[in-house]
Amino acid sequence: MNAKAEIPRKTIYRLSIYQRCLQRLADNGQDTVSSDALSKAAGVKSTQLRKDIAYFGQFGTRGLGYNVQTLSSVITEVLGTARLQPVILVGAGNLGSALLGYNGFNKEGFEITAAFDLDPDRPRPVALKVPIYRHDKIAEFIKLHGVKMAILAVPVHCAQSVANDLVDAGIQAILNFSPTFLEVPEHVTVNSVDLAVELENLSYFIR
Amino acid sequence: MNAKAEIPRKTIYRLSIYQRCLQRLADNGQDTVSSDALSKAAGVKSTQLRKDIAYFGQFGTRGLGYNVQTLSSVITEVLGTARLQPVILVGAGNLGSALLGYNGFNKEGFEITAAFDLDPDRPRPVALKVPIYRHDKIAEFIKLHGVKMAILAVPVHCAQSVANDLVDAGIQAILNFSPTFLEVPEHVTVNSVDLAVELENLSYFIR
Repeated sequence: MNAKAEIPRKTIYRLSIYQRCLQRLADNGQDTVSSDALSKAAGVKSTQLRKDIAYFGQFGTRGLGYNVQTLSSVITEVLGTARLQPVILVGAGNLGSALLGYNGFNKEGFEITAAFDLDPDRPRPVALKVPIYRHDKIAEFIKLHGVKMAILAVPVHCAQSVANDLVDAGIQAILNFSPTFLEVPEHVTVNSVDLAVELENLSYFIR
Repeated sequence: MNAKAEIPRKTIYRLSIYQRCLQRLADNGQDTVSSDALSKAAGVKSTQLRKDIAYFGQFGTRGLGYNVQTLSSVITEVLGTARLQPVILVGAGNLGSALLGYNGFNKEGFEITAAFDLDPDRPRPVALKVPIYRHDKIAEFIKLHGVKMAILAVPVHCAQSVANDLVDAGIQAILNFSPTFLEVPEHVTVNSVDLAVELENLSYFIR
């Protein structure tokens, strides 16, 4: 836990990206990769890449670069097997239903095992692939199945109170799609994705 | 353009978030807000908030804080009317179709006006609300309608080449959902959202 606390969150984030690049290199039969080439593929500076990787030991060989398989195994170990985690979706409205239809999560080893909504029976544009339960069953489900991760896609006005319920029931990590900041205890991690903010931010740059 | 170049991208990003908080305060009939309260609502440090806002002038009054309407108007002006931009979606597969079904973009002033796909006629889980054209019509459409923003949700292996086509046709801003780094010319801005990386990153913290 101590070593973990010292590694910056953004480094952990970038490890996922490096891992993806390494997997693509391995798929293409490449054995080694220079830090310049890997950093370029990942879209970071090579000094950043070297610094990120140095948290976990010395892996590069001067002049040869990194062994693709070795570095990939190290990152897998660091990121842990925690990726094979069950995930619940809270809020199966428009965006939530859309996320359920996205099979990219599954491909990466995350399985959305259940969804929860205030109104499980309201009409939805997509036939959902997972069971959808009433909102008041969340705590029971989380405890019964030891769920630690939740995707939150509820309206802004109830996001904080739903987050509180999730945390009380044992959720430790929330991927938040509600466009609001969530206050959570220190042991809980929130990553927020606000699609409209992303577009708005881009729009600034096109004038 | 000079002033723009000096403002960090992350500041522009946070302005969108401040704006959202201010709108909520205005909706609740609040006239003023302290920098502490606003920074807390936005999930940033108050020193950061003050620094971000200082790029655009002196707005706070010591002891009173910010006037909600004034600050909101300033941010609107900075972010510009560019938000009322037509946006095209490229790649109407699983995730792309899901994004089309998400009406949060519309609510924020972005209209997805058309979608493009290698196979416009393949079966989709959702009835799409916009016309879907063959991939080879993109350049013509972009030029004809003066489109500057695109959402990219194509498979990794073709993401870069599709991005190149978009840039050649005049696209200046890309919201990239393909889990890969895109190389673009300096006048083009890319924001990337990788949903699986977000989950993977979270999973690290729950062990």
